[in-house]
Amino acid sequence: MSVRINNGYVITANAQNACMEGCVIVDGGIIVYAGSEALAPDMDVARTIDANGGIIAPGFVNTHTHVAMNLLRGYADDMALMDWLQNSIWPAEARLDEEAVYWGTMLAIAEMVSGGITCFSDMYNFTEQIAKAANDAGIRALIATAVLDIDGQGDKRLQKAADLFDFVKDYPRVEAAIGPHAEYTVSPEMFKKVGKYAQKFGSRIHVHISETFGEHSECIERHGKTPIGLLNSLGLLELPLMAAHCVWISDEDMTLMAEKDITVLSCPGSNLKLGSGIARVCKMMDTGVNVSCATDGAASNNNLSMMEEMTLISLLQKGVNHQPMLMPAKTAVRIATINGAKALGLEQITGSIEAGKQADLVIIDTSGVRYCPKTNLLNHFVYSGSDADVKLTMVGGDILYEDGKITFGDIEEIKAKASQQTARLVMT
Amino acid sequence: MSVRINNGYVITANAQNACMEGCVIVDGGIIVYAGSEALAPDMDVARTIDANGGIIAPGFVNTHTHVAMNLLRGYADDMALMDWLQNSIWPAEARLDEEAVYWGTMLAIAEMVSGGITCFSDMYNFTEQIAKAANDAGIRALIATAVLDIDGQGDKRLQKAADLFDFVKDYPRVEAAIGPHAEYTVSPEMFKKVGKYAQKFGSRIHVHISETFGEHSECIERHGKTPIGLLNSLGLLELPLMAAHCVWISDEDMTLMAEKDITVLSCPGSNLKLGSGIARVCKMMDTGVNVSCATDGAASNNNLSMMEEMTLISLLQKGVNHQPMLMPAKTAVRIATINGAKALGLEQITGSIEAGKQADLVIIDTSGVRYCPKTNLLNHFVYSGSDADVKLTMVGGDILYEDGKITFGDIEEIKAKASQQTARLVMT
Repeated sequence: MSVRINNGYVITANAQNACMEGCVIVDGGIIVYAGSEALAPDMDVARTIDANGGIIAPGFVNTHTHVAMNLLRGYADDMALMDWLQNSIWPAEARLDEEAVYWGTMLAIAEMVSGGITCFSDMYNFTEQIAKAANDAGIRALIATAVLDIDGQGDKRLQKAADLFDFVKDYPRVEAAIGPHAEYTVSPEMFKKVGKYAQKFGSRIHVHISETFGEHSECIERHGKTPIGLLNSLGLLELPLMAAHCVWISDEDMTLMAEKDITVLSCPGSNLKLGSGIARVCKMMDTGVNVSCATDGAASNNNLSMMEEMTLISLLQKGVNHQPMLMPAKTAVRIATINGAKALGLEQITGSIEAGKQADLVIIDTSGVRYCPKTNLLNHFVYSGSDADVKLTMVGGDILYEDGKITFGDIEEIKAKASQQTARLVMT
Repeated sequence: MSVRINNGYVITANAQNACMEGCVIVDGGIIVYAGSEALAPDMDVARTIDANGGIIAPGFVNTHTHVAMNLLRGYADDMALMDWLQNSIWPAEARLDEEAVYWGTMLAIAEMVSGGITCFSDMYNFTEQIAKAANDAGIRALIATAVLDIDGQGDKRLQKAADLFDFVKDYPRVEAAIGPHAEYTVSPEMFKKVGKYAQKFGSRIHVHISETFGEHSECIERHGKTPIGLLNSLGLLELPLMAAHCVWISDEDMTLMAEKDITVLSCPGSNLKLGSGIARVCKMMDTGVNVSCATDGAASNNNLSMMEEMTLISLLQKGVNHQPMLMPAKTAVRIATINGAKALGLEQITGSIEAGKQADLVIIDTSGVRYCPKTNLLNHFVYSGSDADVKLTMVGGDILYEDGKITFGDIEEIKAKASQQTARLVMT
């Protein structure tokens, strides 16, 4: 379908960070024009949308989440990490099955599109169901099957990871990745096998790195190397690797990651909530590392709002470094959009509003009190707005959310099915 | 008007932190019952509201703000503090007049009630207009006229502060306070005069304390005392004093504040955004200090969402202290409600849902995806919800906001008038 969105303030997140009043024209799922209305090509379109002076921005790219964990939102909060995992999360997750993951994912996708997310990157089990739900909904996704061998099930999981590559091949917006869970759950031998699989499938590697101080320092005790140092010694940094969290990485880790083009998936809200700490994001960026941001799962966030993460990552860097100039609004937007696309290897097709890219975008209603007075729409978007301002979310030209409603399913059915699954998972 | 709100989950914030399924009955502006529906008194009421399983909570008490600064939202962000003040904020504020402050306040009140705030505490100039707007809208307010003498205008301002006490006497929900701005703008002599005024009027004192490291350490250089130590030496801690920010107060300051019953108005979002730092809120509370939370002005936040501040103050304490058990959801709710009422000396009339108190409350719609699955409504309220979930805001039994609309004015007129004022203030 062809669509022309008029009367907008376009935040492009292109290389020049251009923002301008104008319009966006979409044809065949592709952005064919973004710029001033006066210079727009004269095209017949199936639908014209009036943005009413609102923002047209790239959709958010949520680079690290576990979408099915929406089923466990609010179930166990304010607990110590290991108590939380061992006594609440893992027992519930042990009851997961394909149906639960499918409906948990649908719930999460409904939440994500309502907050302007057009692409997500996941690491979990039952990943075929995550892929199926993403395809059913029409959202873009990079899905990594979790691999760990601490329980002796490594090769079985590796096979499941391999299966996913075949499973997603007919899903146009879904790609598979491989997800070695973390240094403390994956042996060096298994990491090497993962590396070979990633080479074979040409896939990205999605891994948790140095989320907590304990995890980081115990790796040094075990191996005489940081997690990043260990992965480097195993050859994994030669492959496209996405490192979630990175709260405790060293300066040397950062230098190595910049050299090897390893990308960071920072989860500021989850890192606070679980008591992990605050990642040194500005230092990473100064070192040359590509930093994206993400919500993590809803069990540790407790929502999937990239709008909130975008605000938080900026505020935290200003506050912790005592420098209010750090991470200005335009940088926060890049972290939440184009940097995420780069992290996922999708920067050629999404992450910014530029002619030739997929039409993955949002329209933000700026008529509310939080956008008044209209001094600076970019500042309002980052520092004042909220998910509730999202008027429309489009992926590849398809509208997945508009005026408070998802278009790909019955929200009441999704909530009911997800709630039934939760009741089963958390039964005691 | 009498109202019965049925089918709710009541978060009382009473001394026992009780939460229960039930109803709330309001008569003559007063809560006459809160508890199970089965035990509710059989009363004729003018209106019955179905909360539809949603939350009924005390309205938020926003203890430190400068509401008229809504006019400068987004005007100057990502700047160093003194550059921001000297080159952006102060020149704009120099053009403020009564009309600007009135409409800026109305805009802020519209925003606050849409986010469930039922009471605010302000410090600014042209405070008669703030009081008038609060009274026109029907919101509860404690308004302090800013007093400083660094420019030689101290006695004039002190007179204005005195005038406000007379001005508000016919406004049932508005009280006056006196607001010596900060140690670096108010001389010790003027602080003593302020103390005498506060005694004379029986009023509270609202002051900025140790917001930045520079301010805190320069006071020690000047006086050999911290700002709190200085105020103690001037006798001001014997009076009911509300200390905003307190990011850099010492352990000794905390002990003194606990002894003297001095209350903290913590502004976590503003403190991050301006690069001031992160207040040691849990340490303060462990020492026995009453801590409330607040938005500060919209020029440094950039919105007036207490929902966001409630979440943030909890997450920050967990994250910075590396202890996810710190500041659990029930404590965050207290900080945003009853602790705020205590800070303002209003805990006998507001801040919790208890029979005999003013009906200052909110109804939260829990039918959205962020409240699904319904594992724990208290956790969802603190960690997942947003202002957009506020369905109704009531002050003293009067509904000020319902289903997306304010009831005390025309929102389009308020936005237009405020925007006109902003255009005048920021003209270059």
